[in-house]
Amino acid sequence: MSDKLYLTVFDAVVQRIVSGEYPPGLQLPNEFKLGQEFNVSQGTARKALIELEKKNIVQRRQGRGSFVTLQTPENSLFKFFRLRDENGNPVTPNLVNQTVLKRRATDKEQNTLYGKPKYVFDINRFRSFKNQPLSFENCVVSADLFPGLDSRGPLPNTLYVLFQQAYSIVVISAKDDITAEPLAKKPAEIMEMATGIPALVCRRKAFDILERVVELRTSIFVTKDMHYSVEM
Amino acid sequence: MSDKLYLTVFDAVVQRIVSGEYPPGLQLPNEFKLGQEFNVSQGTARKALIELEKKNIVQRRQGRGSFVTLQTPENSLFKFFRLRDENGNPVTPNLVNQTVLKRRATDKEQNTLYGKPKYVFDINRFRSFKNQPLSFENCVVSADLFPGLDSRGPLPNTLYVLFQQAYSIVVISAKDDITAEPLAKKPAEIMEMATGIPALVCRRKAFDILERVVELRTSIFVTKDMHYSVEM
Repeated sequence: MSDKLYLTVFDAVVQRIVSGEYPPGLQLPNEFKLGQEFNVSQGTARKALIELEKKNIVQRRQGRGSFVTLQTPENSLFKFFRLRDENGNPVTPNLVNQTVLKRRATDKEQNTLYGKPKYVFDINRFRSFKNQPLSFENCVVSADLFPGLDSRGPLPNTLYVLFQQAYSIVVISAKDDITAEPLAKKPAEIMEMATGIPALVCRRKAFDILERVVELRTSIFVTKDMHYSVEM
Repeated sequence: MSDKLYLTVFDAVVQRIVSGEYPPGLQLPNEFKLGQEFNVSQGTARKALIELEKKNIVQRRQGRGSFVTLQTPENSLFKFFRLRDENGNPVTPNLVNQTVLKRRATDKEQNTLYGKPKYVFDINRFRSFKNQPLSFENCVVSADLFPGLDSRGPLPNTLYVLFQQAYSIVVISAKDDITAEPLAKKPAEIMEMATGIPALVCRRKAFDILERVVELRTSIFVTKDMHYSVEM
């Protein structure tokens, strides 16, 4: 089977998802029907479905077919929020407070975020777990891509679900750069902790279905009785 | 296709890899031949190959077929050693010194490592990058599973390649629990750094092809000009 042939099917499916023709949760045509529609072999259509699944754009369910990936609060938390307690269970934090403001993008933000936005929304969120301060998080998104985000009232715990439901932006992958750093003054004050204690800092780029950078996020965790979990 | 049917093919392939019948790098029979041999449909054999690939037990190469996963220094470093520099390039450390000693297993090690070993090899390694101290690493493996590991002379930079080549133990996955902690006294002394500065601590369990825990590893990094990279 040709390398390029499967890409025509792959790209067409992505285009239909982006246009809204294939909404989240929709069952895709099977490989036989896809092959017919695009005039390629069943094997080529299968290859396209496998690659779509590898990129998390569709999810295959044993014996049932392929479905457009749907972000739920549960899978969003489980996949993109990697803190686990000592028993390996997900740490589900409480949102203590948040602020959202619109401001000019920095040069770096403008160069990194999709669409080179002039303005961004800057979201600060402070979370706790079992009544203990847990994390301080800063998210920066394009004001063009998420119009009105600052006037929606309180944002949900899982931002990516809102991104999909209100803006049809589906975050399907992310890259976290993790370091250990002294806790900076501002988060230390908000979290009521000592400046300079070791903190886990995650700098994230989140990508949507078109591999566009749609969010920059810096999360600062104090990893007491918990850890950031990686499976490789 | 039945859920259980593909598992018979899956398990048989794993068994053949473990027994040495299918050595690393070997090309597997294609889905048609596998199906014939196990008297299942081509679709069922394909499902087995897809699941074997998902678990990293085989690697599929476009248009060429499926091959038993082969650990090389390059893919081992790239997959299991996640430090990247500011440009996202892998940090390839130098081994400055190492010690290997045989000792009694602690209760926790005995309960976690495959085979409940009475004795373990305890490997300490200190690495540098660009002449700067980088990491202090402690690996603990079963003395039963890796006989003679302490009398091999200097160990290679990438331990997992040695595990495969000398002991037929193929590490295919790992779980890292990451925290930020004050640098402890012993690694601080070896790395000639100040005790208490923020350090990234990775506690790893490494799994082989049979999902056995074959190594416990604690790596302590001082993440200056670099980070631990996670893609999700």
